[in-house]
Amino acid sequence: MDTENLVPAELRQLIRTGKWQDPTSGVCAGYVQANLVILPKEYAFHFLLFCVRNPKPCPILDVLEPGIPNPRIASGADLRTDLPKYRVYEHGNMKGEVSDITEFFNDQMVSFLLGCSFSFERALIRAGVPVRNIEEGKNVSMYITNIECEPCGPFHPPLVVTMRPMSPAQAVRATQITTRFHLTHGAPVHIGEPAEIGIRNLSKPDFGDPVTIKEGEIPVFWACGVTSILAVTSEDIPFVITHSPGHMFVSDLRDEDLTIL
Amino acid sequence: MDTENLVPAELRQLIRTGKWQDPTSGVCAGYVQANLVILPKEYAFHFLLFCVRNPKPCPILDVLEPGIPNPRIASGADLRTDLPKYRVYEHGNMKGEVSDITEFFNDQMVSFLLGCSFSFERALIRAGVPVRNIEEGKNVSMYITNIECEPCGPFHPPLVVTMRPMSPAQAVRATQITTRFHLTHGAPVHIGEPAEIGIRNLSKPDFGDPVTIKEGEIPVFWACGVTSILAVTSEDIPFVITHSPGHMFVSDLRDEDLTIL
Repeated sequence: MDTENLVPAELRQLIRTGKWQDPTSGVCAGYVQANLVILPKEYAFHFLLFCVRNPKPCPILDVLEPGIPNPRIASGADLRTDLPKYRVYEHGNMKGEVSDITEFFNDQMVSFLLGCSFSFERALIRAGVPVRNIEEGKNVSMYITNIECEPCGPFHPPLVVTMRPMSPAQAVRATQITTRFHLTHGAPVHIGEPAEIGIRNLSKPDFGDPVTIKEGEIPVFWACGVTSILAVTSEDIPFVITHSPGHMFVSDLRDEDLTIL
Repeated sequence: MDTENLVPAELRQLIRTGKWQDPTSGVCAGYVQANLVILPKEYAFHFLLFCVRNPKPCPILDVLEPGIPNPRIASGADLRTDLPKYRVYEHGNMKGEVSDITEFFNDQMVSFLLGCSFSFERALIRAGVPVRNIEEGKNVSMYITNIECEPCGPFHPPLVVTMRPMSPAQAVRATQITTRFHLTHGAPVHIGEPAEIGIRNLSKPDFGDPVTIKEGEIPVFWACGVTSILAVTSEDIPFVITHSPGHMFVSDLRDEDLTIL
């Protein structure tokens, strides 16, 4: 199957009918993929405000009214069935990983779709900037930093970042390119010295895989959507559903729809 | 008094002590001014989501938790006393215009500060683009269009726009400049033909004053914060407080803090 050239509606149909259960990296090239968070409505105002206050890690692509599972950014889609894998948490403990959340969804549930870095990675590659995790066929390196997010109500995680190594000149170019993608994390949050943001060892990421850092390269850090997952999987939140890592929602938006320039 | 060079904390102190009751246009040059909307918390999620869905007319500068009157974007400020004039509405009917809302504010009230066009007007002037309303000492021309906002819950106003006439070449430059100011309405929503967006007569604005359109100039339209006021002053909303037109909140943010590039 030519998965790179699937259109999103086709992929969602495959997922909904149980014919696709894999990660979505590299699928439907050029279309925006999203992180999913579903919360009870009593937490919705504070979580929406948390995202508004922290737009770099939590760029809002779509938020739906309570009980509505149909995103505005994907025609005919249903968030209860159209992701390959979900995780269900109670008070921060993962209770299960499922391929359909219809039984958990009701008129109290509010769904959030947040930008992910796949969009800007394609733009970097087109510009000749290396994306080492893709070159090496790995998951991107992610680290929990000592940077506090702007808190809101029960949501107060540290900022999680992704790291991509590159030359200083490429870091400048990557900053220009990702500035355009303000709805998929935007410009880097840090360049260079990892210790300054509380990262002790680049070869031991908190999530994902370590990647090769070549001679003369510096680490470039972007805010990461996993920040939102840390925010909602705390013991203060009785119930939450998220996508499973790498198993994203694929929308009808194109990467270029998200650029500011 | 050198009002242009007042710092915001000084102006807010003058307002709080009853020594300033005038409009804020041109005051504290270089600092961001904001539209104010205060609603009961039962409407807060839907109104916040309305703003998220309509970022051009309703760019979010700050939103506060229920009962909190102290914005994060102005040190020591109090939204109950630090605007020169407020309007209080019940079910869309204006019940009064006051200089202090302490008696109306309680732990149920949620405050929203939304961007206004003063920031980008200064940037246009610095770039040599005419801002006719300022040249002529008038309020900007505003029009209710036939463009529907993305609705959310009880909030479903038409888009309100401001209009500034200029040459086609200046319209291109103005588009570039205001693109940077995505938190104060951003790029134009329309250039040229008013009838296409439902405006019949440029010399009869729905709000503000008509301005001179010179030979060879075209009208350039930006989304306007008055859209948010139309949204909340409907009969569906039992109680809301807003700033009085032109009597804005002056924050500690500088115009350049809001630019994306």
